[in-house]
Amino acid sequence: MTTADLLCAARAVKPAAAALSTAEKNRLLEAMAQALLDHADNILAANAADVEAARGVIAPVMIDRLSLSPARVESMAEGMRAVAALPDPVGELLSETARSNGLVIRKVRVPMGVIAIIYESRPNVTADAAALCLKSGNVCVLRGGKESIRSNTAVVAALRAGLEHCGAPGTLVNLVEDTSRASAAHLMEARGFVDLLIPRGGKGLIRACVDSAKVPCIETGTGICHIYVDAAADLQKALDIVYNAKTSRPSVCNAAEVCLVHRDVAEAFLPALAARLAGKQVELRLCPRAAAVIPGTPAGPEDFDTEFLDYILAVKVVDSVQDAAAHIAAHSTGHSEAIVTEDAAAADAFCAAVDSAAVYVNASTRFTDGGEFGLGCEMGISTQKLGARGPMGLAELTSYKYIIRGNGQVR
Amino acid sequence: MTTADLLCAARAVKPAAAALSTAEKNRLLEAMAQALLDHADNILAANAADVEAARGVIAPVMIDRLSLSPARVESMAEGMRAVAALPDPVGELLSETARSNGLVIRKVRVPMGVIAIIYESRPNVTADAAALCLKSGNVCVLRGGKESIRSNTAVVAALRAGLEHCGAPGTLVNLVEDTSRASAAHLMEARGFVDLLIPRGGKGLIRACVDSAKVPCIETGTGICHIYVDAAADLQKALDIVYNAKTSRPSVCNAAEVCLVHRDVAEAFLPALAARLAGKQVELRLCPRAAAVIPGTPAGPEDFDTEFLDYILAVKVVDSVQDAAAHIAAHSTGHSEAIVTEDAAAADAFCAAVDSAAVYVNASTRFTDGGEFGLGCEMGISTQKLGARGPMGLAELTSYKYIIRGNGQVR
Repeated sequence: MTTADLLCAARAVKPAAAALSTAEKNRLLEAMAQALLDHADNILAANAADVEAARGVIAPVMIDRLSLSPARVESMAEGMRAVAALPDPVGELLSETARSNGLVIRKVRVPMGVIAIIYESRPNVTADAAALCLKSGNVCVLRGGKESIRSNTAVVAALRAGLEHCGAPGTLVNLVEDTSRASAAHLMEARGFVDLLIPRGGKGLIRACVDSAKVPCIETGTGICHIYVDAAADLQKALDIVYNAKTSRPSVCNAAEVCLVHRDVAEAFLPALAARLAGKQVELRLCPRAAAVIPGTPAGPEDFDTEFLDYILAVKVVDSVQDAAAHIAAHSTGHSEAIVTEDAAAADAFCAAVDSAAVYVNASTRFTDGGEFGLGCEMGISTQKLGARGPMGLAELTSYKYIIRGNGQVR
Repeated sequence: MTTADLLCAARAVKPAAAALSTAEKNRLLEAMAQALLDHADNILAANAADVEAARGVIAPVMIDRLSLSPARVESMAEGMRAVAALPDPVGELLSETARSNGLVIRKVRVPMGVIAIIYESRPNVTADAAALCLKSGNVCVLRGGKESIRSNTAVVAALRAGLEHCGAPGTLVNLVEDTSRASAAHLMEARGFVDLLIPRGGKGLIRACVDSAKVPCIETGTGICHIYVDAAADLQKALDIVYNAKTSRPSVCNAAEVCLVHRDVAEAFLPALAARLAGKQVELRLCPRAAAVIPGTPAGPEDFDTEFLDYILAVKVVDSVQDAAAHIAAHSTGHSEAIVTEDAAAADAFCAAVDSAAVYVNASTRFTDGGEFGLGCEMGISTQKLGARGPMGLAELTSYKYIIRGNGQVR
């Protein structure tokens, strides 16, 4: 099926998706989860072929992301059941106003419509995204990376078998077969067909979407996250937080890339930080003032604008909370930033001045996550301000409309 | 000042705008309102020069929109005071969650940042937009049409005098001096400088923004609005509603352009409709089934996809609520649609099936308006689903961020 035909089919099923009751959606999710288990052999065989073809072509860490096992298929099925257990956002009454002319204006949550997701090589995203879109009343159009096309095809075949087993249209879940750049470009320009485009992937993909998309788009997942160690920081907490935010999982978007240190605590804190991070062989890229205190690589100007996703931390000495906030405003991607301080006024000033999706006081940036925020799931982390911001759960995949009831009112 | 320099100045003042207290913003709005009155002579002289230059160049209706009078300047000042009286959306606590790990997660409303507005020749928009942006903690970048540049320059000079009289930076309100297409294109592409672009104007402008914008953008104000007269309609209500929606102000986006009539009431309703609209010389463009009942112009295919903004109504006979909803899905701009019916099931089916910003039961589409919705003001009517939808008041000019407080939590 061509991408154009697929988009027509997706658009045609929008009213049916929006009209599904909560019970029907949960029944479909259960059937899709069961179908994943029933089709596990097919899925694993397709995945083995993908892995075989990708070996030597993509990096070992990417092979790991691509690889499925029986346990991973089970976990995909469990994920779908977990989404079934979440509250249904569709139909939620957001506000109600009775006007003096007798009109009653209700603001009600509705699905976005067709959500297209462009992602890379993790086949579990296919099942996750399908579940989140279905539960939020949306039709999904999935466009994964070419390395995972066999796996994704098998996963979507299973999901559609589950849907059709319940008498629901398979076109509620759609996979773009063409994994060339042309199909991604097609989705970005499909006005009238794609109501929301969510790119999930590296900086290049996000950039291409933002530059080229003519459909509404949510930027996700680039995180140059900062931790600012204030003059009034508890330095032990600061060490624990920076260590956790840098080293617990360096490849993810909520990992810290930059540590800003108030000049008053630089001499006490930096040697302890260097010692703590040495255990994980973290490379420090130091501003001149930090380099005067501890050894490390001199930071180049690009080091404060780089998402390392690696055991590298840029370090800069600053003069004040305001100085830290100004550095963040100039260099952050708007994802997550933290202050470590025991001074309530400094904490308040930081929270007010820093305009990122998540601003922490005395906690690790690693908590920016749908599950950790209590959303129960996550489609990605939005770093933009229009539409959803921060972790995107089910509600963040919806819009709203006004329903106004009268008895003949004219103006 | 070049547009690039202006955008730098606007971005630089963002933190100051976001940090203004409610009382400070209200004091500034009051000072700006007073300054408009104090500078009324300058503003009226500049406007007279604009009108003089535009006469014979633009249509009389546009001349009327461009023209200011002492009463109109007073009404601009009153509008600013009305905005001062509205609740401040910034800082509103949208949700609060205490997690079992001790983190407290607060979702708080924040300004968008720099809002750029591209509009046409009405100088009152300059004052309105400046007031709405300031009250919502945003910095505005105003780019009006070339016909009104003298008026806009005088209005912004007055507003800045008001700001500076209070010791606030004049750069909270910015006017783009260059009214060429190049400056509009510059705003559309100013990533990192413009946080939200709102085009207010005709289809061509909206289209250009949607096609070219690399900054987040909200489409506004194109309305192909439908009124569906159901089989179970009270025909007197239907006549009143269609008459009001078509003729009370045909040039606005919430005016009706299309009437859909259920076949069962076509013979009873259409002659009465033709008679009622004849009083306003409304031209009817009829589908073949409607043309079999009443005289009128045969509708061409484009007549069901045209925002006439004139005394013209396209009329089509349909077979059911579902048929009406399908026509609307295929032809509407997603602004406002209405059903006239006494049948609760038909009303519910219509409200569920029609995915437009405002869906009415037994009321005129003309109510889609910030004031009529109780928002107290309006920046425009969004016809998109990402971000604000429908009438945009102060809250619709904001985003949110998460502020998370802990005591050393790591993950």
